[in-house]
Amino acid sequence: MKEIVTTQKVGRFDLSSGYTETEDVVVTEQALTIYVNGNDLVTLLCTPEHLEDLTVGYLASEGFITEVDDIEELKLNGTTGESLAILKGSRGITEKTFLKRYVTTGCGKGISFYQLSDARLSKELPRDYRLRPELILSMMKTLQENSDLHRETGGVHTVALGQNGVLLLQRDDIGRHNAVDKVFGYCLRNKIITGDKVLLISGRVSSEITLKAVKMGIQVLVSKSAPTDMAIEFAQRLGLTLVGFTRGRRFNIYTHSYRVV
Amino acid sequence: MKEIVTTQKVGRFDLSSGYTETEDVVVTEQALTIYVNGNDLVTLLCTPEHLEDLTVGYLASEGFITEVDDIEELKLNGTTGESLAILKGSRGITEKTFLKRYVTTGCGKGISFYQLSDARLSKELPRDYRLRPELILSMMKTLQENSDLHRETGGVHTVALGQNGVLLLQRDDIGRHNAVDKVFGYCLRNKIITGDKVLLISGRVSSEITLKAVKMGIQVLVSKSAPTDMAIEFAQRLGLTLVGFTRGRRFNIYTHSYRVV
Repeated sequence: MKEIVTTQKVGRFDLSSGYTETEDVVVTEQALTIYVNGNDLVTLLCTPEHLEDLTVGYLASEGFITEVDDIEELKLNGTTGESLAILKGSRGITEKTFLKRYVTTGCGKGISFYQLSDARLSKELPRDYRLRPELILSMMKTLQENSDLHRETGGVHTVALGQNGVLLLQRDDIGRHNAVDKVFGYCLRNKIITGDKVLLISGRVSSEITLKAVKMGIQVLVSKSAPTDMAIEFAQRLGLTLVGFTRGRRFNIYTHSYRVV
Repeated sequence: MKEIVTTQKVGRFDLSSGYTETEDVVVTEQALTIYVNGNDLVTLLCTPEHLEDLTVGYLASEGFITEVDDIEELKLNGTTGESLAILKGSRGITEKTFLKRYVTTGCGKGISFYQLSDARLSKELPRDYRLRPELILSMMKTLQENSDLHRETGGVHTVALGQNGVLLLQRDDIGRHNAVDKVFGYCLRNKIITGDKVLLISGRVSSEITLKAVKMGIQVLVSKSAPTDMAIEFAQRLGLTLVGFTRGRRFNIYTHSYRVV
C-alpha cells in the first residue's frame, strides 16, 4: 500500500525572494476498485488507509449491505488497490443492479440515486438524543486540532465520530464521501452504536453526505462549513439535526434544533 | 430551473448571546441527468446554472466528444434536470461503456470513463506558452475577489480561465469537477483557444482535475490549494505546468516550471 503522504521536490516562487527549490509534503491518492461477488462495482480515488472500512462503509452507504454480517468474505489487496467482497446469498445483485444504481427518475431529486431498496432510508430517525451546544463547539475545535494530515498537506477532508465532547474516531481522506464511509465502515465492523453520537465533518454538506449520516443512524450532523438547500431538505424530511458553520464560538442549526439544548 | 441560492430560516447559537432565529443564504443543489442517444449516462449534483456548458464539458471530459460539432442535438430541461444529447454517428457507445464507471473524489456522483480511448490524452501538451509569475498571483487574487457566491454561502468552488492577468470567464459550482466542466463546455461551444490561457481553481487538485485540464489543452493549471501525488505524476507525464498553494505573494510549482518566467 502507498504511504498517505510523500515528500516531493517543488519550486517555490515568492515576490520578495524569487524562485527557489525546496521540498514539500504532498498527500497521496490511490485508486481502490471494489468488486462484489466477482463484479467490478466501482473505483474510488482515496487516501490509502483504512480501505477495509472504506469498502464496508461504501457497500452500506449504497444499500448493498445493512450490517457487516451480510459480508461472507472481504479481501483487500492494498498493492493492486482491489477490494473483493463476497456477500451472503445473492442479495439480488445482477448486472442490472449495477446499471440501475445510476438510473434516476428524472424528477430532479438526488434521492433517486438511492432507489435500490434501502431499509436505512425507510423511516425517520429516532428523536431521543440530546446534547449541549458547548460540546458541539469543543468537538469541532478538537477535530481541527487533531487533523495532522490536513495541516501538513492542505489536501484532505476530515470526519469524526464524537460523544460527550470527546472524539472517538477520526478519519482523513482526499474525498469527503470516503472519509464518511471510513467512519461508517468502522462502526459497522466494530458494532458501534451511532444513535447517541455526533458526526463531525470539516467540509461542506451536500445531499449525499446528509443521506450517508441518516443511513448511519446519526441524529446530529455537525459541519464546519455550509450545507446545500437539498441537504437541508433531506435532513428536515428524515429527522436529522443539521448544524453548519461551526466556527469559534458559534454555529447555525438548519433543522430539528430540539436536540441541541 | 432553481435559483442558485435561497434564503432560509436558521437558528444561530452563539456562546455570548445564546440561541436566536435568523435568516441565511444557502447555496442550492440540483440533480442533472445527462442522456446520450437516449441512454441515461450519469446524474451530476450541481449548481443550477450553465447546464448546457456543463453537459458539453462533461461529455468532452469523459471522451464522448472531441468537439462541439460531434453533438447533433442538445436539449436541456432545467425544470426536470435533464439534458438530452444526441451524438453524430454511434461513437461506439455500448451498454458496456455505461457499466464501467469511476466514482470520484469530488461532489456528487462524478463518474470518469478513464478506460475509454481518449484522443485528448494520447500526446503531450505543446510547450510554447509562457507567463510571468506576477500574473499568476494577480489572477488568483481576482478569482477570489470575484467569487460572490462563495463569499455569500461558503459552499462552492470557483474556476476561471485567465490570460495576461485578466479573467475571461469564471464559473462557480458545488462540485470542483462541475466548475471545470462548465468552463470546458463554454470554451468548446464558443470555439475558444485554450493553449494560451491559464486555468485557475479555488480547490484542491486531484488526478481527475489534472486530466480535465490536459484534455482542455491547458498548459498551466493554477490552484489556491494542494495537489495530490497522482495529480503531480499525471501533470509531469502529460506536460502540464502545475502550480499550487497560490496565496498572497507566493506559490509552489510542482511540474514543468519552464513555462513560468
